[in-house]
Amino acid sequence: MLQPAALPSLATLRDRHATLSARCEPINMTRGLPSPEQISLTQDFLSLPGTHSFSSADGQDWLNYGGLQGVLEVRALFGPVMLGLPAEQVAIGENSSLALMHEAIGHAWIKGFGGAQPWGKADVVRFICPEPGYDRHFSICDYYGIEMVPVAMTAEGPDMEAVERLVSTDPSIRGMWCVPRHANPNGAIYSTATVNRLATMPTAATDFKLFWDNAYVVHDFIPSSEPRPDVYKACAEAGHADRPLLFASTSKMVIPSSGIAMVGGSPNTLNWWLDCRQHKTIGPDKVNQVRHLMFFQTAQNLSAHMQRHGQLLGAKFDRVQQTFTRHLSGVAQVSWSRPLGGYFIALLVPAGLAKRVVAIAAQAGVKMTPAGATHCHGHDAEERHLRIAPSYLSLAQVEQAAEVIANSVLLACAEREAGQ
Amino acid sequence: MLQPAALPSLATLRDRHATLSARCEPINMTRGLPSPEQISLTQDFLSLPGTHSFSSADGQDWLNYGGLQGVLEVRALFGPVMLGLPAEQVAIGENSSLALMHEAIGHAWIKGFGGAQPWGKADVVRFICPEPGYDRHFSICDYYGIEMVPVAMTAEGPDMEAVERLVSTDPSIRGMWCVPRHANPNGAIYSTATVNRLATMPTAATDFKLFWDNAYVVHDFIPSSEPRPDVYKACAEAGHADRPLLFASTSKMVIPSSGIAMVGGSPNTLNWWLDCRQHKTIGPDKVNQVRHLMFFQTAQNLSAHMQRHGQLLGAKFDRVQQTFTRHLSGVAQVSWSRPLGGYFIALLVPAGLAKRVVAIAAQAGVKMTPAGATHCHGHDAEERHLRIAPSYLSLAQVEQAAEVIANSVLLACAEREAGQ
Repeated sequence: MLQPAALPSLATLRDRHATLSARCEPINMTRGLPSPEQISLTQDFLSLPGTHSFSSADGQDWLNYGGLQGVLEVRALFGPVMLGLPAEQVAIGENSSLALMHEAIGHAWIKGFGGAQPWGKADVVRFICPEPGYDRHFSICDYYGIEMVPVAMTAEGPDMEAVERLVSTDPSIRGMWCVPRHANPNGAIYSTATVNRLATMPTAATDFKLFWDNAYVVHDFIPSSEPRPDVYKACAEAGHADRPLLFASTSKMVIPSSGIAMVGGSPNTLNWWLDCRQHKTIGPDKVNQVRHLMFFQTAQNLSAHMQRHGQLLGAKFDRVQQTFTRHLSGVAQVSWSRPLGGYFIALLVPAGLAKRVVAIAAQAGVKMTPAGATHCHGHDAEERHLRIAPSYLSLAQVEQAAEVIANSVLLACAEREAGQ
Repeated sequence: MLQPAALPSLATLRDRHATLSARCEPINMTRGLPSPEQISLTQDFLSLPGTHSFSSADGQDWLNYGGLQGVLEVRALFGPVMLGLPAEQVAIGENSSLALMHEAIGHAWIKGFGGAQPWGKADVVRFICPEPGYDRHFSICDYYGIEMVPVAMTAEGPDMEAVERLVSTDPSIRGMWCVPRHANPNGAIYSTATVNRLATMPTAATDFKLFWDNAYVVHDFIPSSEPRPDVYKACAEAGHADRPLLFASTSKMVIPSSGIAMVGGSPNTLNWWLDCRQHKTIGPDKVNQVRHLMFFQTAQNLSAHMQRHGQLLGAKFDRVQQTFTRHLSGVAQVSWSRPLGGYFIALLVPAGLAKRVVAIAAQAGVKMTPAGATHCHGHDAEERHLRIAPSYLSLAQVEQAAEVIANSVLLACAEREAGQ
């Protein structure tokens, strides 16, 4: 085993901090925003549908009311690519997949699933929350008063031994958050073994649901032809077809806020969704759905478009990796993830230093995601986890931000070593 | 008092029914859809924003994430016109005002208002439901298990004596549905006296809310310069600023399904809404908001656009009125409303005949809104109320449908008179 690298001296790091602070324009990397360059790839989207006409094979008028499930052709294009599901097992929503997740829990709360007791009638509802994870998932739990049960994330997905033990014994665990590809924030890709275990595991709750957030399903930096685990198929084969609720949106494919979100699952699940939803809306925005159809047209075009996104993002992630490798390799208790796609890098610093690193970086003009944001209730007991979000910045800014963060980590370590 | 007109003979009416049936193409007038001519007024909307640029005075980037409350300039344009509220007291939502109403009750269910007990924790929640009313409002009650307490609609709005008696004595009455201008389906315009009584009335529930559905607020057939009652002002002056939740959408102004919905109320109410909503979404579709801004630009343009809608609709409503007047004037226990805007006419037939009229019209090829749809649980105890929805049809179809419906009413009456 290698010896941990010796830290530069406190004085050297403070000098460097001062230099970086002096030259650094303010940089905000708190959230995973697409960059202006990515958004400009979608320029043509803004003029669609224009004078083009459209008619759906199912006879639905796209310019009038109706269409609770969404436009057939849109479901047929996005369903297989984004959710691995055919058109009939997909429903289109409004612009936000997060809102659909929130809504799904709302329907479970009021109506329940398949005649089972509504979740809102239970004394307690618990969800498995892999940590580090996505703060907005935790925020939904917070809203409903759902107790969050953390399990550790690994490079292969959640700690499955913990998950299996928990769901098999606790009937109040009704759901689990999953970001199966390029998880937020560590970029993990759930392995086939992980997906199969999630599909087959016995659960004490008969209406246990996987909230399968395919947020980054077409967001590889470099296209991969490796076969992907199919959670719906695995669940169906295990006799648990109604277990997964799959979600995705085009927010990070077209223009954030003006994408379309979608939800899918078994035929049962779709019937449940539409039965609940008919009380709420006549249907989502069909013009925006058709706009998407005209912009992408085919799965091949969609894939090519996302390769251009991947190139822009990949270059920024490479820059972070190079900078961290240069400065942080071998530093004791410091490590970071090397995702193949998605929007985030997870950075681990020595226990107790996460907030200090964020504070030092802020002094140098780099606003990071707050320490703790990746954990339930914003509380990282170890104070080790940070989230790096390079997507929005220019390459030069990424370089600068990574330099600042790396130096902030070293400085926090050196301060501690010096007993300060 | 006039003697009721004598009915034509059963044989004459059956002949006429046969003639109408033979010549009538199938006509569907179940729902209040805008017509293709109305939608074509919005052709330019489909190419916007195109290459036009936009930047908001508040610095919010319209082409990236963010903006939970909606684009400032959009709120400033639509807030005063649609809700009678300034930009800061308005939040934009997705495409459906119905969905915002459903969501508002969801937030009340889980979170409650201002620290009061969440509605979901109450043994029973009741809503005042003016009858005849909007079936989709009743459907939201049905979803949440809210008990519907019907009160009669008059030409001036709901029966206020009944409303005041109920809300002052029953603390489980937490809300009331109101369509204050061109009510669905009788077209009533709530009088200033009605609005003032709703604003000032004491309520047993401290968190009683008016669900104020401004669905047809800019949908007059002929522009009226009469001053309109201001429900928010009246409530605020009565010390009940948090009482009204106001809703509207542009669904029947641009293209149905691709409009924007909005909600407004007191500053307290807006804070509550945004506090709840931040758990659900990063924000609604800003591109579609800006598309609206570019299409309408000013309140004057909006008003001119809605005058063109009003002309198209008014001609159809006139045709129904003429036909009904010709055939149904003076028929005992038959009457109908004469709205100045909106999408519907309420037709009253002799007690017990509503379903028979719908059935006869269906034989002649005219599919009407099902009898009972205007009442809670789809149950019109008197079986008197029908809803006429001429908006979607061509003038020739309107004429034909009105002829069929009028003859169906007469035939149903004559059948009864003949003891059949």
